[in-house]
Amino acid sequence: MTAKIDLNCDMGESFGMYKMGLDEEVIEYISSANIACGFHAGDPAWMRHTVDLAEAHGVAVGAHPSYPDLVGFGRRNMSVTPDEARADIVYQVGALQAFTKSKRLQHVKPHGAMYNQAVDDEDLARAICESVREVDPEMIVVALAGSRWVEIAHEMGMRVGREIFADRALNPDGTLVPRSKPGSVLHDVEEVADRSVRMVAEGLATAITGEVIEVEADSLCIHGDTPGAVQMAAAVKRGLQDAGVSITPLAQLV
Amino acid sequence: MTAKIDLNCDMGESFGMYKMGLDEEVIEYISSANIACGFHAGDPAWMRHTVDLAEAHGVAVGAHPSYPDLVGFGRRNMSVTPDEARADIVYQVGALQAFTKSKRLQHVKPHGAMYNQAVDDEDLARAICESVREVDPEMIVVALAGSRWVEIAHEMGMRVGREIFADRALNPDGTLVPRSKPGSVLHDVEEVADRSVRMVAEGLATAITGEVIEVEADSLCIHGDTPGAVQMAAAVKRGLQDAGVSITPLAQLV
Amino acid sequence: MTAKIDLNCDMGESFGMYKMGLDEEVIEYISSANIACGFHAGDPAWMRHTVDLAEAHGVAVGAHPSYPDLVGFGRRNMSVTPDEARADIVYQVGALQAFTKSKRLQHVKPHGAMYNQAVDDEDLARAICESVREVDPEMIVVALAGSRWVEIAHEMGMRVGREIFADRALNPDGTLVPRSKPGSVLHDVEEVADRSVRMVAEGLATAITGEVIEVEADSLCIHGDTPGAVQMAAAVKRGLQDAGVSITPLAQLV
Amino acid sequence: MTAKIDLNCDMGESFGMYKMGLDEEVIEYISSANIACGFHAGDPAWMRHTVDLAEAHGVAVGAHPSYPDLVGFGRRNMSVTPDEARADIVYQVGALQAFTKSKRLQHVKPHGAMYNQAVDDEDLARAICESVREVDPEMIVVALAGSRWVEIAHEMGMRVGREIFADRALNPDGTLVPRSKPGSVLHDVEEVADRSVRMVAEGLATAITGEVIEVEADSLCIHGDTPGAVQMAAAVKRGLQDAGVSITPLAQLV
Repeated sequence: MTAKIDLNCDMGESFGMYKMGLDEEVIEYISSANIACGFHAGDPAWMRHTVDLAEAHGVAVGAHPSYPDLVGFGRRNMSVTPDEARADIVYQVGALQAFTKSKRLQHVKPHGAMYNQAVDDEDLARAICESVREVDPEMIVVALAGSRWVEIAHEMGMRVGREIFADRALNPDGTLVPRSKPGSVLHDVEEVADRSVRMVAEGLATAITGEVIEVEADSLCIHGDTPGAVQMAAAVKRGLQDAGVSITPLAQLV
Repeated sequence: MTAKIDLNCDMGESFGMYKMGLDEEVIEYISSANIACGFHAGDPAWMRHTVDLAEAHGVAVGAHPSYPDLVGFGRRNMSVTPDEARADIVYQVGALQAFTKSKRLQHVKPHGAMYNQAVDDEDLARAICESVREVDPEMIVVALAGSRWVEIAHEMGMRVGREIFADRALNPDGTLVPRSKPGSVLHDVEEVADRSVRMVAEGLATAITGEVIEVEADSLCIHGDTPGAVQMAAAVKRGLQDAGVSITPLAQLV
Repeated sequence: MTAKIDLNCDMGESFGMYKMGLDEEVIEYISSANIACGFHAGDPAWMRHTVDLAEAHGVAVGAHPSYPDLVGFGRRNMSVTPDEARADIVYQVGALQAFTKSKRLQHVKPHGAMYNQAVDDEDLARAICESVREVDPEMIVVALAGSRWVEIAHEMGMRVGREIFADRALNPDGTLVPRSKPGSVLHDVEEVADRSVRMVAEGLATAITGEVIEVEADSLCIHGDTPGAVQMAAAVKRGLQDAGVSITPLAQLV
Repeated sequence: MTAKIDLNCDMGESFGMYKMGLDEEVIEYISSANIACGFHAGDPAWMRHTVDLAEAHGVAVGAHPSYPDLVGFGRRNMSVTPDEARADIVYQVGALQAFTKSKRLQHVKPHGAMYNQAVDDEDLARAICESVREVDPEMIVVALAGSRWVEIAHEMGMRVGREIFADRALNPDGTLVPRSKPGSVLHDVEEVADRSVRMVAEGLATAITGEVIEVEADSLCIHGDTPGAVQMAAAVKRGLQDAGVSITPLAQLV
């Protein structure tokens, strides 16, 4: 049972003239920002802008690296080799790091298809961990709570942030119900807030089958891409605080 | 009159399946490598490979950032704003830095059109200097010897590597004769080697007009993109060593 | 004095997950669509979508090719050679053409920096005309009314659409006041509508200096990127129709 | 048993400053060229150059479209949807078509991972066929001989070029032995030439297991990326001609 949780959100996903996300609003509700690094979204100017925004709000900065797929927003599976993944991640993490005041990042959380494939692919999961460790052994890798990926990171002696999602349904084994299935994404603000509080404060969640399962997590992912998502973020944060949970950056938790 | 000079060469300009440059050969003759960072050439896998190559040979590593113009190999002028240039450079420098063992670079030397435009554009020259300083105040910026850009860097209190070119003709004021003019590029190996020795050991060069002019430099640029270029690099290095000049990385000179 | 005018608008400037422009709304007010071709905006899926939208509304389809500069939205000057420009335009025009039912386009209107540079650069203007003619000698090139570019196209025996802008101030010689100058862009809906009617119906415009100058045009450019721009488009179309001007695709005018 | 065969080769795979392939040499030995369209290789200038080369040699021009993966040379599997594949192919085919004299292409042969995935993925195979038909119903789709993809194209009433490979080992069911397996690629010039003649003139091939199997094909793929590959192409052509086989472009065969 934890009384502390990190709240993370994907940010900096604008590109050139293209604006995406309500970063200026959602920044109020989070303790860690996962900032896009130019491969699925983001560009150097937006990366600087978003790092500055996070630092101004005392929000911890992390990298959100992706497969090189701008037109597909990093959401398409790709058969990259572990070596390619390692190099792509080191590149993106280094690039983002250079925009920070401290020249260090708190964490790395892969984006989209890379994240999802790492849950099922041990070689990719290990490659991600290795690239994080290569840049900075103190840096935290964020991985899906309950996944083999978390174990791999632990076996490597790394700091890991076990992540859960405020608005996603769970299978009885703790894995995410795929987005393609009905009921996989929760839309009701109150339900999401209540569920988040229960997962964090009690370590319990009701799976999509109705079973109550145990959940252990360090960071809760919320969204900031629509006005509704920002409202949900606000409700989740309020709910957690009302329940006595302290919103705390990952670096103080793991 | 200096008895020491840095020898630099552009490297890591392969991309994916595309091989460019004889990096494995020219690495034997240089003290500093300018490594492409993905905007005009290079990709994460080649950047890692080339950093490893330089480190294995004890050659100092620097970034060779460019405008974002892969298809034009960074050789086309672009009207980027100083802010855009700054962000693009910080991004590329940070990305390369992450592949090094020390997580630090010796220097930054802009590529192609960005370099040439900086010679004539004070705002761009200043933006380049600022981006280098932002990432690491100890990092050296490499700029054309005799240019206003060198003065700007000095005014900013930065470490500057004043660069000359082994195979380029000079105007009486010390600027490069544009490539578009006849005689701008020297092709004779002996002539280039002799000229290099004279520039470095005596601080003198014969301009294209016949005048003898003074030259002050910290680094001499050589090429490694053709078998002929590698031969020339070998001849220049031998000539300098025979004349008692010590080949020394920039970091020990400025 | 013409009683007919084409109304054109830049469209299809979304990219992947990034939405830009109110294409579905502004399509109601125009007779010709300039569709982005992937170099500054647009991607194959958006190109198909936008061609379908235009065809469903009986709006003539044209290409809106650009320099290859996605992150800069094609707004940055680049020193491309005429050969490079020609190849880039043929590529983009061919790509768009393949999505149309007829496999033919009405026109080509270069985007952003390429358009602006063509006004001042005869070699580029000629290269643009040549590339249009190469793909289809019946295709119309859209060029700034009063520019040397229009003359070049005429000298080449091509069909030309002379373009004016609903919301841009003019110099006494008919050229556009640069966006960097105060007063260059008009924002008042009524003023823009009235000015448009006068330019089209009377062939007259008041320059920024107060002089009344003559204007001859085949196509009037309006915008659809903001709700305000769509309102302005509606007002311009209504004003023209109330003045008895017939909104007519370029192909029926030149 | 056919006395005619098309010889095809991938071409135009240079990019910007990067040169790949011995197009000028291999062009002498083939009847159809598959030209890269910018997504895995090629750029507008190289596409024009390669189309001109093919037309000057009377070689039929076809498109060689790819997934959008320049850094991976189109060799990495990607989970693109059929709609995305369709749009990407129409775009690339249209772009190439615009460089030809006739503004029509003989055929489309997908590249790398897209080709390989189409052999196993009916939805992708169908999407490829639909995109070819959409651009020009007379255009030929090139697909692996014996694959379900060939049947799909036939069911759609399309012209299909059934392709075999001069230097690839076959399984007893006629499919290619994956490159990852030993013996999958044949390197001996005489063996490849003899095998090619037997496949084309007799319709027979010895599978990797030793069984003799039947083969029916319209086009034989050869390579031109190395001096050795060009020698092999020459030997294959000579062998076929000595055996009385006529080298004939696909358009005259299917």
